[in-house]
Amino acid sequence: MKLVPLGDRVVLKQCEAEEKTKSGIILAGQAKEKPQEAEVIAVGPGGVVDGKEVTMQVAVGQKVIYSKYAGTEVKLDGEEYIIVRQNDILAVVE
Amino acid sequence: MKLVPLGDRVVLKQCEAEEKTKSGIILAGQAKEKPQEAEVIAVGPGGVVDGKEVTMQVAVGQKVIYSKYAGTEVKLDGEEYIIVRQNDILAVVE
Amino acid sequence: MKLVPLGDRVVLKQCEAEEKTKSGIILAGQAKEKPQEAEVIAVGPGGVVDGKEVTMQVAVGQKVIYSKYAGTEVKLDGEEYIIVRQNDILAVVE
Amino acid sequence: MKLVPLGDRVVLKQCEAEEKTKSGIILAGQAKEKPQEAEVIAVGPGGVVDGKEVTMQVAVGQKVIYSKYAGTEVKLDGEEYIIVRQNDILAVVE
Amino acid sequence: MKLVPLGDRVVLKQCEAEEKTKSGIILAGQAKEKPQEAEVIAVGPGGVVDGKEVTMQVAVGQKVIYSKYAGTEVKLDGEEYIIVRQNDILAVVE
Amino acid sequence: MKLVPLGDRVVLKQCEAEEKTKSGIILAGQAKEKPQEAEVIAVGPGGVVDGKEVTMQVAVGQKVIYSKYAGTEVKLDGEEYIIVRQNDILAVVE
Amino acid sequence: MKLVPLGDRVVLKQCEAEEKTKSGIILAGQAKEKPQEAEVIAVGPGGVVDGKEVTMQVAVGQKVIYSKYAGTEVKLDGEEYIIVRQNDILAVVE
Repeated sequence: MKLVPLGDRVVLKQCEAEEKTKSGIILAGQAKEKPQEAEVIAVGPGGVVDGKEVTMQVAVGQKVIYSKYAGTEVKLDGEEYIIVRQNDILAVVE
Repeated sequence: MKLVPLGDRVVLKQCEAEEKTKSGIILAGQAKEKPQEAEVIAVGPGGVVDGKEVTMQVAVGQKVIYSKYAGTEVKLDGEEYIIVRQNDILAVVE
Repeated sequence: MKLVPLGDRVVLKQCEAEEKTKSGIILAGQAKEKPQEAEVIAVGPGGVVDGKEVTMQVAVGQKVIYSKYAGTEVKLDGEEYIIVRQNDILAVVE
Repeated sequence: MKLVPLGDRVVLKQCEAEEKTKSGIILAGQAKEKPQEAEVIAVGPGGVVDGKEVTMQVAVGQKVIYSKYAGTEVKLDGEEYIIVRQNDILAVVE
Repeated sequence: MKLVPLGDRVVLKQCEAEEKTKSGIILAGQAKEKPQEAEVIAVGPGGVVDGKEVTMQVAVGQKVIYSKYAGTEVKLDGEEYIIVRQNDILAVVE
Repeated sequence: MKLVPLGDRVVLKQCEAEEKTKSGIILAGQAKEKPQEAEVIAVGPGGVVDGKEVTMQVAVGQKVIYSKYAGTEVKLDGEEYIIVRQNDILAVVE
Repeated sequence: MKLVPLGDRVVLKQCEAEEKTKSGIILAGQAKEKPQEAEVIAVGPGGVVDGKEVTMQVAVGQKVIYSKYAGTEVKLDGEEYIIVRQNDILAVVE
């Protein structure tokens, strides 16, 4: 099964939070800060969204920074994804 | 009786939540997480909605992921449906 | 006396809530769930509303589902009506 | 003195609340439900309001139903008026 | 010194609240209801405001009714003025 | 160092609050009412802001009245400035 | 790794807060006021954002003042950045 986003939606998969702090301490689940970095898994077709023409500017496989409180978390086949609007993607990490 | 949605509205029927967790425990009603996956039952005609031209991009029978807090729950003949705007449908599951 | 709605307004009359539950218990006033189903009593002329062209898509006599918290309740000659914008009508029940 | 409304404003005068309930009990001031029915006293010229062309559709002398929480109450020469935008008038009572 | 309003702004000066109630009782400062009637002192040039063309429709010297919670109170040379957008002026009193 | 505002932004410097009340009492810092009068220090270029064409209508050196809660306070070289959008300037004081 | 902002986004790096007050007292981390001055690190391409054409007006290396509560803080390789929309940049410091 795969997610095919509509309009200007983008499917992201959060990058793994590093398990160790710089000093080498292994963090338990709770203490890990939720990273805002994610990988682009699927990109919607863009087009007219809310009456405005949107051109998609991210591509599958890119690492991106997205807005902290944006998006909807979705679970599919036990995997967690975040679906955001392209507008909630702030920057590409190169 | 059937629901004929207006404008950019889409009638959804929630997919059954799995009764068992991965470990095989049977869940009582309360503990089941409400799934966001739903099947498209009926699709509005689109057209000009709020002064903006909307083209419908989902089709009856598709499985879709919709925005968690969107939509209106409707009961008809004892069956529960959710009516959402197409814009609240995030992705199609293929 | 009758209500002649302006713009994209629609006058609805709520359908009677069923007095009995499936198991046949007769419900007192309080316990009856307010149904969202209503009959269209009068339809505004549409036209330019809030600077946007609106075409009316419902007709007198249709049964419709409307958005739970929308509309204004109005009492006329002892009868209760709900006046909603067409946009708050989610679907027609056929 | 008279009120000449600007733009899409309409001056209304609330209809007297009936002093008696159906069973004939005379109500004191507090218990009377504020009616939403009002008479149109003056109608603005319409034209471009908030950048949108508005055509006035109500006329002086009509009885109208207006939105419960809309409008500004104004006292002039001891008389109370309500000034609403035409958009807050839901229906004409004929 | 004088105030020259920008855009669709209008400078108003509140009319004096009547010192006496109808029954002739003289009111102390606190008990006087703040009147919404004001005189137009200066009128902005109009033009494009928030991307919308605005034509000024009030004139210096007119008595107007303005929206109760609108405007900014300004003190200049010990005199108090209210600066409102023309849109917050509901009606002219003739 | 100097501030060069972007778009429709205007840099203001608050006029000194009068140290004395009319009766001649000298006010300590706390009791002085914050004046809304300010001098224009720098004016942005205008142009398309939020998709709307804005023409700047204030000039450096003018005394203006600005909206009480608008703007961002900025400290540069120990001096305090307020940066507002032109739309938050209500009137010019001549 | 570097951040490549999308649309009208701008990547900023906060200027170091001065460690000393004017009187020469060295401030601990908590007492230092967060400065609003930042250096532009990367500038998005502009173009159509939310259906409106945006031209970028800041350049890499400029010192800017940005709106206090705007933007998203991002950590990359241990460095902290703020990503803002160009519209949240109030002025350039020259």
